[in-house]
Amino acid sequence: MVEIPDSHPRKKSLLSRQKMVEGSFKGLLADSAMIAHGRGEAFDYLLGEKTTKSAHAAIRESAARLGEANNPVISVNGNTVLLAGEEALRVAAVLGCSIEVNLYYRTPERISGLLTLLEEQKRNVSRENAPDEFEGNWADAVMGVSLLGGLPDFRIEGLEGPRSYCTEEGIGSADSILVPLEDGDRCEALVNLGKEVLVIDLNPLSRSAKMATVTIVDEVSRAFEGILSELLSDCNFDSTDWDNESSLRESLQEINESLNEK
Amino acid sequence: MVEIPDSHPRKKSLLSRQKMVEGSFKGLLADSAMIAHGRGEAFDYLLGEKTTKSAHAAIRESAARLGEANNPVISVNGNTVLLAGEEALRVAAVLGCSIEVNLYYRTPERISGLLTLLEEQKRNVSRENAPDEFEGNWADAVMGVSLLGGLPDFRIEGLEGPRSYCTEEGIGSADSILVPLEDGDRCEALVNLGKEVLVIDLNPLSRSAKMATVTIVDEVSRAFEGILSELLSDCNFDSTDWDNESSLRESLQEINESLNEK
Repeated sequence: MVEIPDSHPRKKSLLSRQKMVEGSFKGLLADSAMIAHGRGEAFDYLLGEKTTKSAHAAIRESAARLGEANNPVISVNGNTVLLAGEEALRVAAVLGCSIEVNLYYRTPERISGLLTLLEEQKRNVSRENAPDEFEGNWADAVMGVSLLGGLPDFRIEGLEGPRSYCTEEGIGSADSILVPLEDGDRCEALVNLGKEVLVIDLNPLSRSAKMATVTIVDEVSRAFEGILSELLSDCNFDSTDWDNESSLRESLQEINESLNEK
Repeated sequence: MVEIPDSHPRKKSLLSRQKMVEGSFKGLLADSAMIAHGRGEAFDYLLGEKTTKSAHAAIRESAARLGEANNPVISVNGNTVLLAGEEALRVAAVLGCSIEVNLYYRTPERISGLLTLLEEQKRNVSRENAPDEFEGNWADAVMGVSLLGGLPDFRIEGLEGPRSYCTEEGIGSADSILVPLEDGDRCEALVNLGKEVLVIDLNPLSRSAKMATVTIVDEVSRAFEGILSELLSDCNFDSTDWDNESSLRESLQEINESLNEK
């Protein structure tokens, strides 16, 4: 890995890029995953590479809804595991929920490669100090996170082929799904099943962003960090009648403002 | 290659993506080339995937300047050859100039792979009907385009390492360089040498876009097609005192307008 000096203004973005390139060499990514990452880079650049006001509100709403759900689950793909696997594990540990590897271009090799990487990340996170405000045994909470997706025994209704496979224990029986970087078709199918779908997507104009119950327009690792901090915060916050369309309009407005400042 | 129906509204964008994925399999691209392509996709989407008014003015200005230059050259990288190699060859045939493969992450394998692909594209283009308005023998004009870059014998002053290598016949002695998708450092070095640098870049905020003499904020194949049509047009157009900063501001304004319409 090339060393990037701490002083580099875009260090975090360049480190993410390196993680993607390495994941690609290891065969963990579909062909077009790097292109999708590049699209995300462009939108993040336009957002000023920070969590905007509207994204912060969507993060808070998502945290509230995950906390209220009976069976929340986090659905992850290759890009998410590479860019924010550890951040997702911390959120799952606090919620006591599972993480399911669920790929649009599913192959047994990529599923098992990503599950192996998540196992490694889980061991790393379990050895960390507990986050401030966390009550209980951190190592136990982290090691208790089930990693699903290796043995799909359920299908998402309304989708054809391997992209519909999932597990009954995870996505199949979930009432609330946190799913970063999801495909539009699958997002729509999950919503049609009556599930609450909380999407993380840097493009406020994407079909997923428009289909979701709540869309967090933010970079995936920042979004997970924001959710973690909301879940552990002292201030209890209840879910609201969320107006996702209006939230997406605010994101577009924020991009406009950021463009005008450049 | 997966078949994309003609009716698909984003067919051209998806075909470009396939070309990139295939080029990557063939080892023609640097690690981060796919990510760069994704960034371009996002900006093109924001521009409405069409040549905007300000891009059209920049295309016309670039065509005028290339026509007036003593030694114009087209500098291409992997993404350009894959996405618009044939379009670049048509422009070179009309101008009677060379094309130089010039890579930021130069390896002998990629240089020779790209030159081989350009040779193949050259044979294809030479067999086409001449474009309307072209006078002379089309096949001869196309086959007469020199493909440079295999044997660098010159260096771009002000740059270190392999990224500085070029040929004296091409970039070294050029007074005007048309260079799509260029790196900011190299763009700056070329401008510092007193050369006229005409850049094609979808990101109006990139360092290349800001450093260039004229920046065409457009997708690379559309930009080449536009230049070709200006070069062959009946209306002669002289170069102007080009205000590139103001042109880039217009591009940002166009993105703003396009966002407001979505």
